[in-house]
Amino acid sequence: MEFSSKLLEKAVNEMAQLPGIGKRTALRLVLHLLKQPKEQTQLLASALTQLREDIRFCSRCHNISDEEICYICSNPAREQSVVCVVEDIRDVMALENTGLYKGLYHVLGGKISPIDGVGPSQLNIPSLVEKVKSGAVKEIIFALSSTMEGDTTNFYIYRQIKDSDVIVSAIARGIAIGDELEYADEVTLGRSILHRIPFENAIKNS
Amino acid sequence: MEFSSKLLEKAVNEMAQLPGIGKRTALRLVLHLLKQPKEQTQLLASALTQLREDIRFCSRCHNISDEEICYICSNPAREQSVVCVVEDIRDVMALENTGLYKGLYHVLGGKISPIDGVGPSQLNIPSLVEKVKSGAVKEIIFALSSTMEGDTTNFYIYRQIKDSDVIVSAIARGIAIGDELEYADEVTLGRSILHRIPFENAIKNS
Repeated sequence: MEFSSKLLEKAVNEMAQLPGIGKRTALRLVLHLLKQPKEQTQLLASALTQLREDIRFCSRCHNISDEEICYICSNPAREQSVVCVVEDIRDVMALENTGLYKGLYHVLGGKISPIDGVGPSQLNIPSLVEKVKSGAVKEIIFALSSTMEGDTTNFYIYRQIKDSDVIVSAIARGIAIGDELEYADEVTLGRSILHRIPFENAIKNS
Repeated sequence: MEFSSKLLEKAVNEMAQLPGIGKRTALRLVLHLLKQPKEQTQLLASALTQLREDIRFCSRCHNISDEEICYICSNPAREQSVVCVVEDIRDVMALENTGLYKGLYHVLGGKISPIDGVGPSQLNIPSLVEKVKSGAVKEIIFALSSTMEGDTTNFYIYRQIKDSDVIVSAIARGIAIGDELEYADEVTLGRSILHRIPFENAIKNS
């Protein structure tokens, strides 16, 4: 792609570094900004810079936070002894949206994935193990995605905490609400019949 | 969407102002930036700000340019008397990529579109008409997309210059190279048989 302006080329190249944004899309976005008032570009640029400079991670759960301790960890109404282990902050947001979970979180920052070069040392695993060993945690809930990497990560953590006096659970897998049985994959359907629950429990939160 | 950080929320909201970027995508992009070195965010922010502050438009053809006159208009090797009328700078880039056009351009900055509130006064039409009336132009080539808006814009300009001593042409419409006739739409196929060209011309640039 040949550009008539070095400034334009630089902006497009930087924009195209973002995941899922190719050069053509980057050009479209940059040309859009050029048609908008200057203020919009300034607001975008300063919001990104400020975020990158001032962002903090909760020292307890590693969630993104403006404070030393995030609003979930510092909320006395939450069950401090239940910790849900998730991959990243998007999972925290998804679980918070349900409004049904009242415990705390622990954000790993990824999953163990040798192919992508992510080992246990790059994840927030030691602080989780420490938390469990300190005896402050009664239950650990694994809520990683059920992929090879998610399962590996669950098992790696489980081996380190299984001797502690902690309940280890995992979120329920099964047929999604509204899905047709005939289109469900066999593994999920098989698990959903094996791990069936009392009907009274099933209708409790519906 | 509830965010655990005001900084994050601001960055996501600004990012989601871009066309085709929803809140979820914006969050994914912003979280990606957080995982990268600080420099990447700084480079992106400064490239965008600098572009928006310092960008100039060629005073002759309205193409984006770092100089008063763009590199195409100031190139003495280009045919100064042939002007191709395009919608925006992406079209200039596409035509330049062919390597076959040696004339100049005139970037309108859009098409006449009453539905989107774009009238002739928002486009770079007066400077084009002036250029033609000054007598410096021998040929005008319309290269707008063949939509209702494109045709309207072509016709609007044509009415203002048709009394001048200028050749007015339009880029060829027809079956794209490599396309199967049976899948072509009727209008295109009909035009391509009406506007057939001598076979010797057809094989000249293939």
